[in-house]
Amino acid sequence: MAKLTGAETVVFSKPVSITATASTVGTKEGDGPLGKLFDRVLTDNMAGEETWEAAESAIVKDDLSILFEKSGVRPDFIIGGDLQNQCCGTNYGVKDIKIPTFGIFDACASFGEALALAAIMIDSGAAENVAAEVSSHFCSAERQFRFPLELGNQRPQTSTYTVTGAGAAMVSSADRPPYITAFTAGKITDYGVNDANNMGAAMAPAAAECISSHLRDTVRDAAYYDLIVTGDLGYVGKELLLQLLKKEGIDIADNHIDCGIEIFDKASQDTHSGGSGCACSAAVFAAMLYKRLRNGELKRILFVPTGALMSPTSIQEGKNILGTAYAVAVENEVIKWNI
Amino acid sequence: MAKLTGAETVVFSKPVSITATASTVGTKEGDGPLGKLFDRVLTDNMAGEETWEAAESAIVKDDLSILFEKSGVRPDFIIGGDLQNQCCGTNYGVKDIKIPTFGIFDACASFGEALALAAIMIDSGAAENVAAEVSSHFCSAERQFRFPLELGNQRPQTSTYTVTGAGAAMVSSADRPPYITAFTAGKITDYGVNDANNMGAAMAPAAAECISSHLRDTVRDAAYYDLIVTGDLGYVGKELLLQLLKKEGIDIADNHIDCGIEIFDKASQDTHSGGSGCACSAAVFAAMLYKRLRNGELKRILFVPTGALMSPTSIQEGKNILGTAYAVAVENEVIKWNI
Repeated sequence: MAKLTGAETVVFSKPVSITATASTVGTKEGDGPLGKLFDRVLTDNMAGEETWEAAESAIVKDDLSILFEKSGVRPDFIIGGDLQNQCCGTNYGVKDIKIPTFGIFDACASFGEALALAAIMIDSGAAENVAAEVSSHFCSAERQFRFPLELGNQRPQTSTYTVTGAGAAMVSSADRPPYITAFTAGKITDYGVNDANNMGAAMAPAAAECISSHLRDTVRDAAYYDLIVTGDLGYVGKELLLQLLKKEGIDIADNHIDCGIEIFDKASQDTHSGGSGCACSAAVFAAMLYKRLRNGELKRILFVPTGALMSPTSIQEGKNILGTAYAVAVENEVIKWNI
Repeated sequence: MAKLTGAETVVFSKPVSITATASTVGTKEGDGPLGKLFDRVLTDNMAGEETWEAAESAIVKDDLSILFEKSGVRPDFIIGGDLQNQCCGTNYGVKDIKIPTFGIFDACASFGEALALAAIMIDSGAAENVAAEVSSHFCSAERQFRFPLELGNQRPQTSTYTVTGAGAAMVSSADRPPYITAFTAGKITDYGVNDANNMGAAMAPAAAECISSHLRDTVRDAAYYDLIVTGDLGYVGKELLLQLLKKEGIDIADNHIDCGIEIFDKASQDTHSGGSGCACSAAVFAAMLYKRLRNGELKRILFVPTGALMSPTSIQEGKNILGTAYAVAVENEVIKWNI
């Protein structure tokens, strides 16, 4: 049975396993430092489709089929989301799969939300296997949130580069490491940032608040975790996160990495502050973090997908960009929580 | 503990209560047949804000405060969604409330998804109180999905009228009727409908499939329920639903109502096929159905919010409109499921 600990943290004392992951990425991500780790690298980011939006849905469908094959199960439910208006990347991607799907939206933090909800479903007995799945596509995101790609706009150094791809995890009642042992659901924060080319600044305070709440609620030190992994803060947001946490007496300089920094090579790939998009943290989790947990190189990580909540309309209307984050503890042992 | 029964249905054998509801609607809904039942009727659909989108967020915030007051609790989590791109109605509505929020999207079926997820959270022990909350606004929806209101376009007779308002329910571990006893999560269906002014046709097959699965999985007759209540099929979709179910040998002509038909007066309000939008089913549930369950007039209902999944982009790209539905059983007794 799950238990709410502190204000925002839910802990699981029975096994909630991640039995498999799947990752599919675009050409640029395939050329990056993690290129060899992904299950599938596209040779063409159109994925055989006629539109960017349809390409993203094709990626979702393919990535889920990889997940079903690797896990050997067809899940009871899918929990999925993406950045396209009305979650169309997900909906058109899953429509032929005929598995009940819970649509979610938490921008680039969606994979964290999906893992958290999947874990609760497993814990409650509502399902034996749940697929958590998210996607993003550079081209569908750029034209929706910023400018038509054809304009060839210059992008400021604070901007991040939306990852093309999908990441998925099979969350299961099977007793096999690694396990989701806890999650902390962040509150939506508004720190007055309104520059759509500086998502890192909007998300860093939300990540700091979520990590800090998680450590307090679980009575753990930051050093407990082999790695604390944020989603897509990028170089700009990482700097802010470390500063904000330091003010609270929390030092994660030695065990913090950011998926947006890991996925691209700063020197050669011209991605400025780093990678972003729902698929950024999800694909890095699926391809790199999960494997390192499985082979024992990592024993416990705090995985913190981060999201910037806004729409083109909200930006036009002068609203601030809101930040959110989910911290998900993934460990190689089931924890008998006593808090 | 929850249990997955059949392919898509989850049943709850312990109390998952709805302890309070809240509804806020706009002026037109206030003038409709249910006008007197809503907790709050706006005198101005701008709700004191400068944009329609901000008005929707203000409605969300107010409706949640009514819910917190009526239930006497501040929930552990909020699960919420709306029709605005990137769920901005919800996100800007909850940002000052400082409660962790799970963003969802299933178009006008979102309230069904929210109730289902909230019930699982309560069942698992992850929370003691969860607020399920959704909203929609005629003006923000029209300009986003169809045409600028200033154009004064004529609307076809198959079209529905997006409800301005919000509906919310406090789902709780308290043992007090009515209870959520089961839900069936619909699969996303594609029946080839691509007319954005005929949502009823896109959703009716999804509703039929979901209701049929629910009855099969729970081994219940349609007549078991005092009412089977769909979300926003309207007159056009209702007709299709009854026909589709009849083909499967299921007759719900005597105990079916549709929230989209209930909320407006066809003769005088010029709303064509009826009401729609996330708030349609949610506000009707909160204002009418919940009260009739509480006073014993209804003992068990199957509440089936329906959703049409699409975006302006997907329509422009010639994709079909997908349908989805969630069937949530709400009854005045806890059921000891033996299936």
